[in-house]
Amino acid sequence: MGTKKRILVLGGGFAGVCAATNLERLLRPDEASIFLINQENYCVYQPLLPEVISGLIGLTDVVCPIRQLCPRTKLIMREVQNIDLVRRVVTVSPGFRPRLLELPFDYLVIALGSVSNFSGTPGMVEHVKPFRTLADAVNLRNHLIHALDEAEIETDADLRRKLLTFVVAGGGFSGVEVVAELCDFVDKVRQNFPRLRNEKGRFVLVHAGDRILPEMSESLALFAHKLLAKRGIEIQLNDRLVGATSEKALLKSGLEIPAKTIVSSVPSSIPLVLHKLDCENEGGRLKVNANLELVGYEGNVWALGDCASITTISGKRTPATAQHATREAKTVSKNIAAAIHGGPSSPFAFEGLGKLGSLGHYSAVAEILGIRISGFPAWLLWRAIYLAKLPSLRQKVRIALDWFFVLLFPPDFVQLRVVRDAGIARQHLEPGEVIFFQGDLGDNVYVIQTGECDVLRETNGSQAHIATLGPGDYFGEMALLNDVTRNATIRARTAMDVLMVSKKDFEALKSSIPAFREVFQRLAQDRSRKTATA
Amino acid sequence: MGTKKRILVLGGGFAGVCAATNLERLLRPDEASIFLINQENYCVYQPLLPEVISGLIGLTDVVCPIRQLCPRTKLIMREVQNIDLVRRVVTVSPGFRPRLLELPFDYLVIALGSVSNFSGTPGMVEHVKPFRTLADAVNLRNHLIHALDEAEIETDADLRRKLLTFVVAGGGFSGVEVVAELCDFVDKVRQNFPRLRNEKGRFVLVHAGDRILPEMSESLALFAHKLLAKRGIEIQLNDRLVGATSEKALLKSGLEIPAKTIVSSVPSSIPLVLHKLDCENEGGRLKVNANLELVGYEGNVWALGDCASITTISGKRTPATAQHATREAKTVSKNIAAAIHGGPSSPFAFEGLGKLGSLGHYSAVAEILGIRISGFPAWLLWRAIYLAKLPSLRQKVRIALDWFFVLLFPPDFVQLRVVRDAGIARQHLEPGEVIFFQGDLGDNVYVIQTGECDVLRETNGSQAHIATLGPGDYFGEMALLNDVTRNATIRARTAMDVLMVSKKDFEALKSSIPAFREVFQRLAQDRSRKTATA
Repeated sequence: MGTKKRILVLGGGFAGVCAATNLERLLRPDEASIFLINQENYCVYQPLLPEVISGLIGLTDVVCPIRQLCPRTKLIMREVQNIDLVRRVVTVSPGFRPRLLELPFDYLVIALGSVSNFSGTPGMVEHVKPFRTLADAVNLRNHLIHALDEAEIETDADLRRKLLTFVVAGGGFSGVEVVAELCDFVDKVRQNFPRLRNEKGRFVLVHAGDRILPEMSESLALFAHKLLAKRGIEIQLNDRLVGATSEKALLKSGLEIPAKTIVSSVPSSIPLVLHKLDCENEGGRLKVNANLELVGYEGNVWALGDCASITTISGKRTPATAQHATREAKTVSKNIAAAIHGGPSSPFAFEGLGKLGSLGHYSAVAEILGIRISGFPAWLLWRAIYLAKLPSLRQKVRIALDWFFVLLFPPDFVQLRVVRDAGIARQHLEPGEVIFFQGDLGDNVYVIQTGECDVLRETNGSQAHIATLGPGDYFGEMALLNDVTRNATIRARTAMDVLMVSKKDFEALKSSIPAFREVFQRLAQDRSRKTATA
Repeated sequence: MGTKKRILVLGGGFAGVCAATNLERLLRPDEASIFLINQENYCVYQPLLPEVISGLIGLTDVVCPIRQLCPRTKLIMREVQNIDLVRRVVTVSPGFRPRLLELPFDYLVIALGSVSNFSGTPGMVEHVKPFRTLADAVNLRNHLIHALDEAEIETDADLRRKLLTFVVAGGGFSGVEVVAELCDFVDKVRQNFPRLRNEKGRFVLVHAGDRILPEMSESLALFAHKLLAKRGIEIQLNDRLVGATSEKALLKSGLEIPAKTIVSSVPSSIPLVLHKLDCENEGGRLKVNANLELVGYEGNVWALGDCASITTISGKRTPATAQHATREAKTVSKNIAAAIHGGPSSPFAFEGLGKLGSLGHYSAVAEILGIRISGFPAWLLWRAIYLAKLPSLRQKVRIALDWFFVLLFPPDFVQLRVVRDAGIARQHLEPGEVIFFQGDLGDNVYVIQTGECDVLRETNGSQAHIATLGPGDYFGEMALLNDVTRNATIRARTAMDVLMVSKKDFEALKSSIPAFREVFQRLAQDRSRKTATA
């Protein structure tokens, strides 16, 4: 046997957690110590995540604590910062004390999944909501309810339309389920808002392909398309989200959709820490052999799940679904046990059992073992299968109770705002958009990163152009310094990116860093001599 | 009849929401428009809030959407910024667009409750967690789980003890329930953490009086005291929390308790917006007459709930409980209806039905109509009464299901971290405490607001004092600018308050504001010539 081996599993999604549970079964405690590194202490049951938006199932019911799923594995709740494949050391982020932790390994399992990657598309990071994690789902729910509450009291009809328009990018399983949930939820909940009862929401699904649900056969996708369209969801095919501001979504076709809510479910790239690895890539994912070993590090490193490029025996790329991740985890753990016990490695051989997608409103589409089902029977099947597949009995009972409860009561619409937004935010603007109007409250100082804007002032009914500001310039500090409303309107001249420093942070910096205060005072004096803007 | 009256209700706690529901019953839609202003769209059922910590009841089950409780009332989800009692206008904070909203009123109901007020006590704002709102409960739960997860992997025994020590200030109902919940939860959940199974948590309840539960009779308080003590909770009587740092709680007696979790349930002051009102105060609360009219504004303005100083007919001050708030709301709405219909006003006459306090672990204390009950029967009564008093059937069913579920399954310990901490934070330090150690990671820039610290550097095993820094000085930027670890240890020489700017915010400011970058570069050059600190 020799010494006890150290196995490191990176990532606590389905792939990582299943690998750890299988390793616990295959290896005795004296053969190996198993470590799992994940930022959260829970594993998200992704297929049910869209139901969190409407509160159909409770927030904590869609997740399961990792420690309960793999009790013998040591969970380290930190972020992976570096992987050294040659020295065989993984470095993780600091905890309560700012110190890095180095973890050596004999065997490494990489299951870090994928991350949203909005870089390169203007305004996406700032104004498009990703939909991948539990936090994303809760944030989207809160934003949604905030938009409805504001629409209820807003008197400007244009702004009210924007608040009631919801754009979802990506017409795969996830995007379709999200738009269906959004539509169901808004439709049911607006009955509680007197002014919104006669004002329907607008829902737009944007998809790059020529039909939605590319994972499904064409006939089922068509069924789903018709069903969504019947419910009033607009489906924009052969188009893509190419930009966003706080006021609208910009599509590749040139179409602009005024909206305060833009969601993207589009899959994305592997985490940054994997980009830095010195190994082969395939289509932007880690290249593995048939035994799921990382090419170049066979016998020591395995990769699986969404971060690995895995082909089935029939030559198809495996999709990013839970059923594939669990089978990949089985193969990986068997091969690690074989490496420790001595024995042959076995290849990954699983072609998938079927596909399921919920369409909300008691409807779904399914393709199981070659049979196609749609509508209510598919929806029942969808619920039954996912309930059976939930990792713990606790979750099964909770979610069954949740689903039972929904039959009796309408959804609630409590906003779970836990932390108020803080810190320095960014904003993207398209030409002609207004950052603030003369007479508005001063709530932020703005610093221009790219682009130009016009400073406009209205006096006695006529508007004068006072100045043009460019990169490195800032504005808005006068209203903050003097605690008055904005004395000018700022309008983007070109596409712009600005940094927003909140009033609270600005005050804190100003009162504590003398140099900071001096700089702003000096610049403000120059400014007020010239234009007196803000 | 005349014109339709505008009634404004400020605050969506029990008092405000009950006032609105009663007004809806007493007044026809053509007689009055009712507006309710509250930052959240839900009403929290306070007595059950401690159960959110352990996840005994679901996050959304302890709250109820205000729109469902009072459907005819217009809910405005904003913050009250100013109340002009003479002009009869209330100003509320901006929504999606930075503009103030002015709301005129004929009749005003002030039910804004109280807020945590930690000002004047060093380190309280930064390091003590309040326990009043749903957000507080969720934050406390997340912090708790984070502490357990870190304790599990921490190798430093001192730090592990701090992570497992929990201090609760205030021995009234709320404090007792919180400490009981904390103790139950940590005891059950640590079974899932292999290294913590044999390491008990330390729980300290600090109370200013000479016995806990001042709301109860002495015999019941004694019962509760013994029961908590038996479970291992330390009770520190005749003492008060007078300060806090990130490492310890400071008590008035001079006792210092090293702890990473300090909670305060101590009641507090009325909101700032009420301090500005031109009216009489009594013990820091708004003074009202027997009819709950604000003294000086009779016939137009009423105040109730925790923000008003109300005495019962027997001369006792009414406590801040739900049963009193609902009765006060009835009196206020009856009197407003009388003002509109014409008729006599009636005084508030309610002496309270009883008192209930949960002690966790199937135990409670109760005093109902003069009868004292304790232990399991009181606990059953406690549950039955609160279940009956829940405002909506939906909540009753959900919470009954939650309670039933708990009988079958242990509590879960999923951390619901939704937003990562961002922005500029503050930290308080006592003399001798270390801000960071040489060799730590650089994650923040610090600016000294008050106090002094020593800069210490270790070279070849001996430590040299390099410099002393004072107010307005900053440190820590070198490690950030050069992306290396700290090259010195910073230790507080006196009590200190520092401002922390995160690496991310520092980078954003530096890269976008040339003046900011220049200031820091110039100062950093000066510094490195002198001491090369960071």
